[in-house]
Amino acid sequence: MKKLINDPERVVTEALEGMALAHGDLIRVSYDPDFIVRADAPVQGKVAIVSGGGSGHEPMHGGFVGYGMLDAACPGSVFTSPTPDQVQAATEAADGGAGVLHIVKNYTGDIANFEMAAELSEDANVRAVVINDDVAVEDSLYTAGRRGVGGTVLAEKICGAAAERGDDLDAVVALCERVNANVRSMGMALTSCTVPHAGEPTFELGDDEMEIGIGIHGEPGRERMKLEPADDIVARLVGPVVEDLPFSDGDRTLLFVNGLGGTPLIELYVVYRAAAKLLEQRGITVERRLVGNWITSLEMAGTSITLLKLDDEMIELWDAPVHTPALRAGR
Amino acid sequence: MKKLINDPERVVTEALEGMALAHGDLIRVSYDPDFIVRADAPVQGKVAIVSGGGSGHEPMHGGFVGYGMLDAACPGSVFTSPTPDQVQAATEAADGGAGVLHIVKNYTGDIANFEMAAELSEDANVRAVVINDDVAVEDSLYTAGRRGVGGTVLAEKICGAAAERGDDLDAVVALCERVNANVRSMGMALTSCTVPHAGEPTFELGDDEMEIGIGIHGEPGRERMKLEPADDIVARLVGPVVEDLPFSDGDRTLLFVNGLGGTPLIELYVVYRAAAKLLEQRGITVERRLVGNWITSLEMAGTSITLLKLDDEMIELWDAPVHTPALRAGR
Repeated sequence: MKKLINDPERVVTEALEGMALAHGDLIRVSYDPDFIVRADAPVQGKVAIVSGGGSGHEPMHGGFVGYGMLDAACPGSVFTSPTPDQVQAATEAADGGAGVLHIVKNYTGDIANFEMAAELSEDANVRAVVINDDVAVEDSLYTAGRRGVGGTVLAEKICGAAAERGDDLDAVVALCERVNANVRSMGMALTSCTVPHAGEPTFELGDDEMEIGIGIHGEPGRERMKLEPADDIVARLVGPVVEDLPFSDGDRTLLFVNGLGGTPLIELYVVYRAAAKLLEQRGITVERRLVGNWITSLEMAGTSITLLKLDDEMIELWDAPVHTPALRAGR
Repeated sequence: MKKLINDPERVVTEALEGMALAHGDLIRVSYDPDFIVRADAPVQGKVAIVSGGGSGHEPMHGGFVGYGMLDAACPGSVFTSPTPDQVQAATEAADGGAGVLHIVKNYTGDIANFEMAAELSEDANVRAVVINDDVAVEDSLYTAGRRGVGGTVLAEKICGAAAERGDDLDAVVALCERVNANVRSMGMALTSCTVPHAGEPTFELGDDEMEIGIGIHGEPGRERMKLEPADDIVARLVGPVVEDLPFSDGDRTLLFVNGLGGTPLIELYVVYRAAAKLLEQRGITVERRLVGNWITSLEMAGTSITLLKLDDEMIELWDAPVHTPALRAGR
């Protein structure tokens, strides 16, 4: 295992300490239980948005804490759900009296622990929206139903902007449900990653193999098959994504080409090119886009494609200022 | 070789097509010769800043074209200098009549080709600044003198902001020389990368080995040695960087922790933590910072540390708005 770490048991804590040292103008970090909140939390009278999940998907979620996005994030151990006390502490630190939205990716452990935290946070008015945008498989390791993947990043940006402009909890919850209803994703991997405390690759792939429909923790996808040119791989992702909603001729969309961590940006733009062309052929308009490593699986090489059907309100909120360690625009 | 590409000979072109499709609001791409310019180029009366170099270091340089940073970038083949006609075409497309600054990394081919392009661009008033911030080795493969690495990103941001506010060519050149005089870097690798048209790793490293002082094309560094904990590795980079300028007690700095492409962000924050602590022990203040994969070597795993001694003007320019595909803030 070749990693820039000191101790597998301390990776998450030391990375949090690094974030605190680097981004003290934007965030505060609390330890034991670990969570990240906006530097100005709680923002009185604003709906607070709290997310979290296993570490190893950086910059999600901690890198999205700040003005216009998340109020707090709870990083679990690598690929491990945050504990209820973490989520409770983050919820209470973020709560500005206008209610708290938990944005939860659909993994069994995450759902159970966010639910328990909501019950424990007696003074906060907590609602939850579960993101389940991955069309690859119906049930999976760690998941009943579809997994939550790239759509989570878009939901956090859009709902964060809505909360920032003063929408109330009902409105932010409804918006988050609307984003989830209109977003679909699918990913693939060229290589595995290695969880630090495991020390061995999560799965094995032959030198000429890839996994289509991979999960962000290396869960099995739809099919293991021979490597293909990028255009063919992208077609295997875009097809199921488009046909699932379905997206149709005339739809306006946000196209999110995500890297899983070990794939260089030059390849992600080759992927973006292929995806944009396929959507154009179907008459689907790409109005907004995001390209880069935003929801990762440590150093896994691969990509995921997320497509969100936009409406005017979502576009306005996507374009709104955001000021977080990872994502910045405007203001 | 596992890559998300179609054809090793077409990676750069297809990635440029992807960038053009994704970022048409910010940039225009020309082909044959290949270059990227700001969507609003040439900006009349503004000093134009042009950079470039081999592809494979994305987002540098193409991802830095836009308001507040570069006017144009010339991507060569992977790890290969751009040709004089590329640089000439980019220079002429960017020239708004107030002169053009070429920011050139110190590689023999880059310098020769930028010089030839300056001669060919007869109508433009072209000046060049060579960045040579890598303290690892004195001469190297492809380089006489020190290599240009992470300091280039900082010079492009700071000088781009100066040009945007209306500084004249003499002032922007002097500023760029001042940045170069005050910036030092050093990197290390855990793994090699594979150049697409080569198809094989550039170099071999044992499972328990690392290369200290690596170049961004995989050029040999100072020492190949056994893998160590991150804190020890960081000390091997920070020491030579600090002692070279030298940086001293009381200096205000920008700390740039860069990933070489295949290292996940969670590890870069472990590196940032170690570097920030070492600087604090020396009484050096970190006033600004940048953490992420900004000057990469394809999918190489590793990191580089860049330290810039700041003055008030550099801080103001670092904080100025920037709007490029890769780097955004303000406005």
